[in-house]
Amino acid sequence: MFLREHWYVAALASELESRPLSRQILGEHVAIYRTTGGEIVALADSCPHRGYPLSLGTVVGEQLVCGYHGFTFDCLGKCVSVPGQDRVPSRADVRRFPVVQQGPWVWIWMGRGEADPTALPVTPWLVDTEGWSSVAGVAKIDAPFHFLVDNLLDLSHETYLHNGSIGTPEVATTPIEVEVDDASNVVRVYRHMKSVDCPPFYSRTTGLVGKIDRWQDVEYFAPGFYLLNARIAPIGEPPLEDGSDDHAFHMKILYGLTPSTDDKVYDFWALARDFCVGDSEVDVFLEQMQTAVVQEDVDALNILQTRAEAVLEVSEVSIKIDRGGLAARRVLAAMADSLTPA
Amino acid sequence: MFLREHWYVAALASELESRPLSRQILGEHVAIYRTTGGEIVALADSCPHRGYPLSLGTVVGEQLVCGYHGFTFDCLGKCVSVPGQDRVPSRADVRRFPVVQQGPWVWIWMGRGEADPTALPVTPWLVDTEGWSSVAGVAKIDAPFHFLVDNLLDLSHETYLHNGSIGTPEVATTPIEVEVDDASNVVRVYRHMKSVDCPPFYSRTTGLVGKIDRWQDVEYFAPGFYLLNARIAPIGEPPLEDGSDDHAFHMKILYGLTPSTDDKVYDFWALARDFCVGDSEVDVFLEQMQTAVVQEDVDALNILQTRAEAVLEVSEVSIKIDRGGLAARRVLAAMADSLTPA
Amino acid sequence: MFLREHWYVAALASELESRPLSRQILGEHVAIYRTTGGEIVALADSCPHRGYPLSLGTVVGEQLVCGYHGFTFDCLGKCVSVPGQDRVPSRADVRRFPVVQQGPWVWIWMGRGEADPTALPVTPWLVDTEGWSSVAGVAKIDAPFHFLVDNLLDLSHETYLHNGSIGTPEVATTPIEVEVDDASNVVRVYRHMKSVDCPPFYSRTTGLVGKIDRWQDVEYFAPGFYLLNARIAPIGEPPLEDGSDDHAFHMKILYGLTPSTDDKVYDFWALARDFCVGDSEVDVFLEQMQTAVVQEDVDALNILQTRAEAVLEVSEVSIKIDRGGLAARRVLAAMADSLTPA
Repeated sequence: MFLREHWYVAALASELESRPLSRQILGEHVAIYRTTGGEIVALADSCPHRGYPLSLGTVVGEQLVCGYHGFTFDCLGKCVSVPGQDRVPSRADVRRFPVVQQGPWVWIWMGRGEADPTALPVTPWLVDTEGWSSVAGVAKIDAPFHFLVDNLLDLSHETYLHNGSIGTPEVATTPIEVEVDDASNVVRVYRHMKSVDCPPFYSRTTGLVGKIDRWQDVEYFAPGFYLLNARIAPIGEPPLEDGSDDHAFHMKILYGLTPSTDDKVYDFWALARDFCVGDSEVDVFLEQMQTAVVQEDVDALNILQTRAEAVLEVSEVSIKIDRGGLAARRVLAAMADSLTPA
Repeated sequence: MFLREHWYVAALASELESRPLSRQILGEHVAIYRTTGGEIVALADSCPHRGYPLSLGTVVGEQLVCGYHGFTFDCLGKCVSVPGQDRVPSRADVRRFPVVQQGPWVWIWMGRGEADPTALPVTPWLVDTEGWSSVAGVAKIDAPFHFLVDNLLDLSHETYLHNGSIGTPEVATTPIEVEVDDASNVVRVYRHMKSVDCPPFYSRTTGLVGKIDRWQDVEYFAPGFYLLNARIAPIGEPPLEDGSDDHAFHMKILYGLTPSTDDKVYDFWALARDFCVGDSEVDVFLEQMQTAVVQEDVDALNILQTRAEAVLEVSEVSIKIDRGGLAARRVLAAMADSLTPA
Repeated sequence: MFLREHWYVAALASELESRPLSRQILGEHVAIYRTTGGEIVALADSCPHRGYPLSLGTVVGEQLVCGYHGFTFDCLGKCVSVPGQDRVPSRADVRRFPVVQQGPWVWIWMGRGEADPTALPVTPWLVDTEGWSSVAGVAKIDAPFHFLVDNLLDLSHETYLHNGSIGTPEVATTPIEVEVDDASNVVRVYRHMKSVDCPPFYSRTTGLVGKIDRWQDVEYFAPGFYLLNARIAPIGEPPLEDGSDDHAFHMKILYGLTPSTDDKVYDFWALARDFCVGDSEVDVFLEQMQTAVVQEDVDALNILQTRAEAVLEVSEVSIKIDRGGLAARRVLAAMADSLTPA
């Protein structure tokens, strides 16, 4: 039921300190940790002996030692020692999952086959910090993955759910354009607002006052990566014909949508900006602001799920603002169908 | 499974301030709120767009605006605007439930047909305050509706469960009389205690000391309204032949029994008295005392439900004190049977 | 599914003060209390009237009075009075369970037949305090009974889970000997460690420093009683040929394993020692130390159960250290099989 042959964000690099991290991804428990040498490792989080979580164990050098009876594993998941005897049973190895760090995010490959490095989403603004600053975080939502897809593909909710930070009336009233690239499983939603108020999220950081032009260009790379290209500029000053756009402020708002179980999803986020670069006060402001915005989404989706659990079927009345979300559903359904043997 | 074609108490008037109230009644989520103009409105608490609770929205004048994407509804549940387009889909209306305020209580009609105003319980002591003072409250019980019916129909439990406030030994030992009016679905239970101790609940407010005559005349109007006519008087001084009873103290103890779900029930209560009228200290004393008494019932019924959930069948041994409760069960079962097509 | 015809520890004597204790044992709710005269009584914890827990009632002399409507029971479970009438229904009695106090532990017989006094485990170190001091406690584990059996039969986990108190590397590395007495349903596991470090648990109380000989001789009397005979002695000084062993320190570590429900178990424990007898500071130290050790087991087993609930089947890789636990499983399975009609 999960789309496994894809990269998903599994952790923030900052979460991987001395103790292993336990995370349930696509239904599987994974222990993620950094070895003494600095390598990031992800192993199935269940000791083959009696099922105790390996994430409760201890990292010793390049090895992970189970906290119950001491079964010990190397970075490839191979069991290298057990208590009370010299011979190590061959069945005692655990599965290792490929991981790749890109800036603040650690990506994981949960697929059955080999990891496909060319399928890894490209996030240069997080990795090559020349000209960009970024902050990142994560929240867990007690609602299904597709609730979060719906939420992010229809930003008109900013006006109501996030009206103190990023929402202004024009987000809800401005019509959208939707493009679907079925071959690449990408949904794009464009909303270009002209001569609108600058919301607190941007006025505080850009210094712009009064009316602005505000673009929200969404790219959803199904299933697990979402990129909102935000452009804030003085009125009537579009990018130049050569593509340069130095008079505007740009923010890349990235989301990693990672299903945990059927009814829970991790909401990883990162904000990269090409202004106030290196300004740690702006870092703090944006991190606090975005954490609050994400929590508003978490609260709303948790409530939706609580309600959905109580009824057999939730009927929906969709309107034009929903075209992006409905397109994403179709793309995801097609991807799932393609997994089914004919 | 619910008896829908009846009035139930849905809220205290005091609960309806600036923010909408969410309440689950007979299994349905209802958003109850007061408009800027003062009208009380009850709508189905689920936005037709994506199911977000309307109770989390904002009252703007006479309209309710959904807090997720801004679908907007008038007092009749008609959707009057949606974001991003001018045309409002015809399927976007929500159900409105008739409500009537009577003093501190707001009644609701959850039935499929038209509301029947003549079926509304009569509670003059709460509405016409001439000669009466009242206090009111509500508790939610994590146990089925019928547990609360059992509890209220057999007041012998006062002696044990409420022995610090309204219970004295004679409540349990004094035999009861039971009358059933099958045509009107009313069960009456009479307990007339002669020359008994005055419990703290009444001695503090009436000033009576030593022995009293104490009557408990219960009227249960199935399914949702219960009235305990309490009479406290000096020994051997019954009402006069002309019905006047000025030498006695009277209290009307009203309960609104409102099923929330199959296994939860709201326990609305109100106390009206014809003594110490207008004395706010007595108001405070009685409100605190009754809140504590109700909480004792809540705790007991919650525990009973926890136990009942763990067993397939709870066997019972009924005795004479249970005749009121058993009569109420028969009346309710007959009402339910009458709903079933022959 | 439970092995009923056995004695289980039901309570600590110290838990039976003025108020009845509610405990679920082998799936059944039991009210355990001490009468005014000092007798310990265990009755089915459900009033026959409406199922209210009798453990919420009041002990009045030798009787227990239900806290809801006052049904009253004697020490044999016979209902001796009900409210509102003189005649007591014959069906109103409740089941009484035989109990026996032995020192700090109260044993119960949940079997359908007569209690078998000869089957009661012998714990002289707790009862006859000549030459012995003891402390006792109890914890509840949200995991099945057999998880606790596994835990106690394989002490190699001390090295990892209890490494700050009773675990040293040699517990895990020292091979074990296992004996099974199928006729008596007893599993014995011997681990004799020579010239090893003395863990904090013993060094603090015995005063031994440096290397010691340390024996762990386990006797598991299936299903409900476990005895760890611990022997701490200077290096190379085994017991004398006549069996005397005065130069060693002995501790009896007793566990009462009492299934509560299918997936919960009570973990009663007692520590008896033949050194520092009567020293209350050592009592306090050992009680705190053992409480912490037991909590480490509780945490680990709760986590295992949380994981086990999420999967259909937990696969296991067993090694030599597991021979005691596997033997215990076989003995318990044989006992369960013997209950099944051929």
